[in-house]
Amino acid sequence: MFKVDFSKTGLKEDFSLYQEEVSRCHRDLHEKTGKGNDFVGWVDWPKNYDKEEFDRMLACRKRLEGKYDTVLVCGIGGSYLGARAANEMIRGLYPKGVEVIFIGNTFSASYLSQVLDHVKDKELVLNVISKSGTTTETSISFRIFKKLMEEKYGEGAKERIIATTDKSRGVLRALADQEGYETFVIPDDIGGRYSVFTPVGLLPLVLAGVDIEALMKGSLQAMKDFSSEKIEENPTYQYAVARRMLGKEGYRAEMFVTYHLQLTMLAEWWKQLFGESEGKEGKGILPTSACFSTDLHSLGQFIQEGDRSFYETVIDIDDMGADLVFPGDDKDLDKMNYLTGKKLSWVNKMAFEGTLSAHYDVGNVPNIVIHFDDNSAYTFGYLIYFFFIACGMSCYLLDINPFNQPGVEVYKKKMFKLLGKPE
Amino acid sequence: MFKVDFSKTGLKEDFSLYQEEVSRCHRDLHEKTGKGNDFVGWVDWPKNYDKEEFDRMLACRKRLEGKYDTVLVCGIGGSYLGARAANEMIRGLYPKGVEVIFIGNTFSASYLSQVLDHVKDKELVLNVISKSGTTTETSISFRIFKKLMEEKYGEGAKERIIATTDKSRGVLRALADQEGYETFVIPDDIGGRYSVFTPVGLLPLVLAGVDIEALMKGSLQAMKDFSSEKIEENPTYQYAVARRMLGKEGYRAEMFVTYHLQLTMLAEWWKQLFGESEGKEGKGILPTSACFSTDLHSLGQFIQEGDRSFYETVIDIDDMGADLVFPGDDKDLDKMNYLTGKKLSWVNKMAFEGTLSAHYDVGNVPNIVIHFDDNSAYTFGYLIYFFFIACGMSCYLLDINPFNQPGVEVYKKKMFKLLGKPE
Repeated sequence: MFKVDFSKTGLKEDFSLYQEEVSRCHRDLHEKTGKGNDFVGWVDWPKNYDKEEFDRMLACRKRLEGKYDTVLVCGIGGSYLGARAANEMIRGLYPKGVEVIFIGNTFSASYLSQVLDHVKDKELVLNVISKSGTTTETSISFRIFKKLMEEKYGEGAKERIIATTDKSRGVLRALADQEGYETFVIPDDIGGRYSVFTPVGLLPLVLAGVDIEALMKGSLQAMKDFSSEKIEENPTYQYAVARRMLGKEGYRAEMFVTYHLQLTMLAEWWKQLFGESEGKEGKGILPTSACFSTDLHSLGQFIQEGDRSFYETVIDIDDMGADLVFPGDDKDLDKMNYLTGKKLSWVNKMAFEGTLSAHYDVGNVPNIVIHFDDNSAYTFGYLIYFFFIACGMSCYLLDINPFNQPGVEVYKKKMFKLLGKPE
Repeated sequence: MFKVDFSKTGLKEDFSLYQEEVSRCHRDLHEKTGKGNDFVGWVDWPKNYDKEEFDRMLACRKRLEGKYDTVLVCGIGGSYLGARAANEMIRGLYPKGVEVIFIGNTFSASYLSQVLDHVKDKELVLNVISKSGTTTETSISFRIFKKLMEEKYGEGAKERIIATTDKSRGVLRALADQEGYETFVIPDDIGGRYSVFTPVGLLPLVLAGVDIEALMKGSLQAMKDFSSEKIEENPTYQYAVARRMLGKEGYRAEMFVTYHLQLTMLAEWWKQLFGESEGKEGKGILPTSACFSTDLHSLGQFIQEGDRSFYETVIDIDDMGADLVFPGDDKDLDKMNYLTGKKLSWVNKMAFEGTLSAHYDVGNVPNIVIHFDDNSAYTFGYLIYFFFIACGMSCYLLDINPFNQPGVEVYKKKMFKLLGKPE
């Protein structure tokens, strides 16, 4: 069952002391009166999303069915992290069926040339994702892989390239219209890191075989469950208030912890959401991550006994689908027979419980624990919306605009000058 | 050329003020008189390593040549991070030839069952790595995959399973001897995170086709280059002193930055080395990481304008082998023709230079930059030894034992109790 547990945070203060502040921010978020209010389209999106366009995504998949084994997703930041997080959480790291490969998020030629070689004999679909079409990483990859598609499929390439972009403006819109690609729309009032429920996230996922209808149902349920302005009724606001309190206590970093390797990219998605929303005006909590028990054998020592500058937010998921029963062995040379017949999911749960106690009771690291049922598409939709609302509230509590990212332009400007980009 | 650049750190103090302290720590490290001095076998290892055993690794590869396409590496922490970091840095993320899959580092049944399925029709070699043979994650995976090997190859499994373990003690040593596996030795005086130059790292790498002779030559060259006790002559000590100064200035986290996705695991290796060595007695700098320009579109905003609690250590590599030339396009619909004919490696370099200036000159984030020539096995050996020495010095400057990890036992004890492990 979904539950957020603050009992291992050591927070003494009563959350309700923040009710007035939270109520004000709640109104700003829902009545669109707060900072960045031209980018809150995501708040009602689970209810208001374009149903016709959604059906067109399902139809697009049908149109291409049987014609591809590999989806190339060409985007960066919010234009790849959500889809990748969902694809890995739901389908795992060695999934059957369609392979999804992310390009458009790097200038690394060694990476891109290996991908070019890896996919040359595959049956491809290419989804390019960019609001303006001027994002350099994405544009470079797109031109290179568009060329590959045209060499491979000739005129047929047009049917295998799909553009997710602005509804009317920008160079990618113009290019897509001229080339005759099918297109999907990035709404004007939803920024990149809040876009996973739009075609930005959903199209790659439906092409990968993910049940996007269930995913949207999860987001809708979360929208209903997290609509109260009362902190005591709304776990998203509890999480935001706890973060605020921990920040005030001097914690400088938040470590997002999972117990499955296939959730590593969920952590990366979360890092963008909070880092890019909150990291402004010298404020915010540095987002970092770890995967346990794997990283207990690397970062574990620091977490247990190093500088106390951070707290943990731990994702605990009950049912990850596949399970394994530990097999017995007559000889028991490895002395592991005490676990014979036990499920690995249970062992992992004991690792979680033991670690929680080790880090909080012994190590004095505050631990917020978020419990979820499973790794289904529905649950993914639910938890993403949970973090959206929590993040909006976190930023408003800091008097920060959660929806812009002015700092991202600085490196671009300097790079463009070095690249000799025309004005 | 190898070079460490401190010009963008803003450090005003003269490094030589630390000379006396550094000289004392230098003697402790090289004369084995410091804390944890029973674990400094790695210091002279590039010269003193067991040549007979090294040749046996080459022979082992020869013996198995043509019989396998997949290497399963079963280990956790220091028993997988070095090999994985090297494999990805040198061979990339979509390499030709042997596939290397890491197991033994998780309780995640959804991961392990997908791997079981993924490899069922492959030709396998299984390398299990554990000093004692009692590491729970590794033992569980090993029993499960040993069973797979025996089902698949019957008696022949013995020839395809190789154990890297203690020379005489422990359950894995006993098991390996009884089953008749070929074995390689984890030295008594080299801890997990310092073990990549031993068979722990080298055996998986030679099986993956990496030139481990070049790798050891790189480590030997580094050993020669970084032997001076004088800070001005020794970049490893400069790095250690700079870290100490930044720590004193109040920086709480160090972000390890690379510009290639295939260096992500190098960052993970580095995080273990520094986090597990230094994170004790409430001390140390929280190790974190990012891959640019990818993460400039996620963490970039925070780095540019968020809380100033961290500094960056940036890896800049000149030649990553493969390159791509940006193709021209007559129509230029994407307005990218200004880059026609440019190499992507150059574009990536401009991204690095622009970002360095954005983060330091505008964002006031101290940036240490470490330049390397390429991503060869030789260079890997060189840079790893660089970090080893720098880490030893960093810890001694903090009066910390760099070679133990008492905190890692805490979660284990609590977990064992929950698992009902016999005493």
